[in-house]
Amino acid sequence: MNLDQHTSQKYNQELETVRAEVLAMGGLVEGQCRKALKALVKGRAELAEEVASSDYKVNEMEVSINAKCTDILALRQPAASDLRVVVAIIRMAADLERIGDEAEKIGRLAQTLAEGRNGSSYRSDPKHLGKSVLDILNGALDAFARLDVEAAIETAAMDPDIDAEFESLTRLLITRMMEKPASVKNLLRVNWCARSLERIGDHAVNICEEVIFLVKGSDVRHLSLKEIQDRFLQPTA
Amino acid sequence: MNLDQHTSQKYNQELETVRAEVLAMGGLVEGQCRKALKALVKGRAELAEEVASSDYKVNEMEVSINAKCTDILALRQPAASDLRVVVAIIRMAADLERIGDEAEKIGRLAQTLAEGRNGSSYRSDPKHLGKSVLDILNGALDAFARLDVEAAIETAAMDPDIDAEFESLTRLLITRMMEKPASVKNLLRVNWCARSLERIGDHAVNICEEVIFLVKGSDVRHLSLKEIQDRFLQPTA
Repeated sequence: MNLDQHTSQKYNQELETVRAEVLAMGGLVEGQCRKALKALVKGRAELAEEVASSDYKVNEMEVSINAKCTDILALRQPAASDLRVVVAIIRMAADLERIGDEAEKIGRLAQTLAEGRNGSSYRSDPKHLGKSVLDILNGALDAFARLDVEAAIETAAMDPDIDAEFESLTRLLITRMMEKPASVKNLLRVNWCARSLERIGDHAVNICEEVIFLVKGSDVRHLSLKEIQDRFLQPTA
Repeated sequence: MNLDQHTSQKYNQELETVRAEVLAMGGLVEGQCRKALKALVKGRAELAEEVASSDYKVNEMEVSINAKCTDILALRQPAASDLRVVVAIIRMAADLERIGDEAEKIGRLAQTLAEGRNGSSYRSDPKHLGKSVLDILNGALDAFARLDVEAAIETAAMDPDIDAEFESLTRLLITRMMEKPASVKNLLRVNWCARSLERIGDHAVNICEEVIFLVKGSDVRHLSLKEIQDRFLQPTA
């Protein structure tokens, strides 16, 4: 009797199910972010409202994934290396849930901007930042789907550019606020959208770090990008 | 032979250790928030720098707590009800780490405000909001220390007031930006500090929800306060 093997097989099946659910949650969250950005940039109030009011779906998926993970831990008692997968999935679902929260916030702000007066003047400012953020999120989810450490590290390396883009957009918005004090409210809303986008980028980096943890078993969350690269990337010839 | 009991005793000892570590982490994070607020309101650049540069301690504690929890899961294989505790602790440590990040952000902004020109005019604006946020954080950590569901629910109920206070502070800052366009930069920094404070409040609510999950076994993270109260509070005579 090979109980270990037996447990591990059952565990693999259940893990595949929960992994598929995380991927589906990732797809849903990515769609929410894409819609939120479109609603913001194009000034589509209805689409913005749709994003803002469907965050509950993301929340439900997190609760379901957490429950499944807790069941796996309790019933399968996976060994140390397998445990990592479950712990990484719990943390990834938390990050996806927070990305969903940021998309919801952008949705609400986009709705106010689309419905209000003069909102159109500035709402296209975060367009480029938004595209970069969708790219890093897509890269992170893709790295998770393929459990690809190299892709995870490459994707995480996009974040400093996003931060720089956010800083420069903020400076632009500040200049505009000083020039047009009457537009301060709308410009501040645009700035909050930009900040939410920047945070989505941070969560995408967390997901990349979970992929590394999951595959390599090292908790790299508080290492610098340089340290991570030195440790896990082969030097190229 | 009572293996269950045996496992559970060892588990209890190890759990006590990790629980003490979470409490210590909570104390450290609370101290960081208190210092960050003081540095902001009093314009103390050195204190601000101290806060901004000691976030690594909080990060190290999270890594250590996570490693201990993973070991407990792997070696003790706790049963379903005990598992909850470990899962709750992993999530709580993540919330504390994010509170530490927000304190660090406030520290950096406070430093810029303290060192810059004219920073003093507005930096005391978030004083009252800051005190409310320190209260809710203290309440949440206290509810965890005593595993007190009622206190957790009461503490979480403070959050809507904090949100309202944040909204009203934001409106005040917007009015000031419109009146004094030259101060937009500093006012925006104050607004970001306020936003970080508001987020610390949100994380304190998460901690309250973890206390409920830990004691009652229900995942209440996406329920409304009213639903939580109806479910877990005894009607008072």
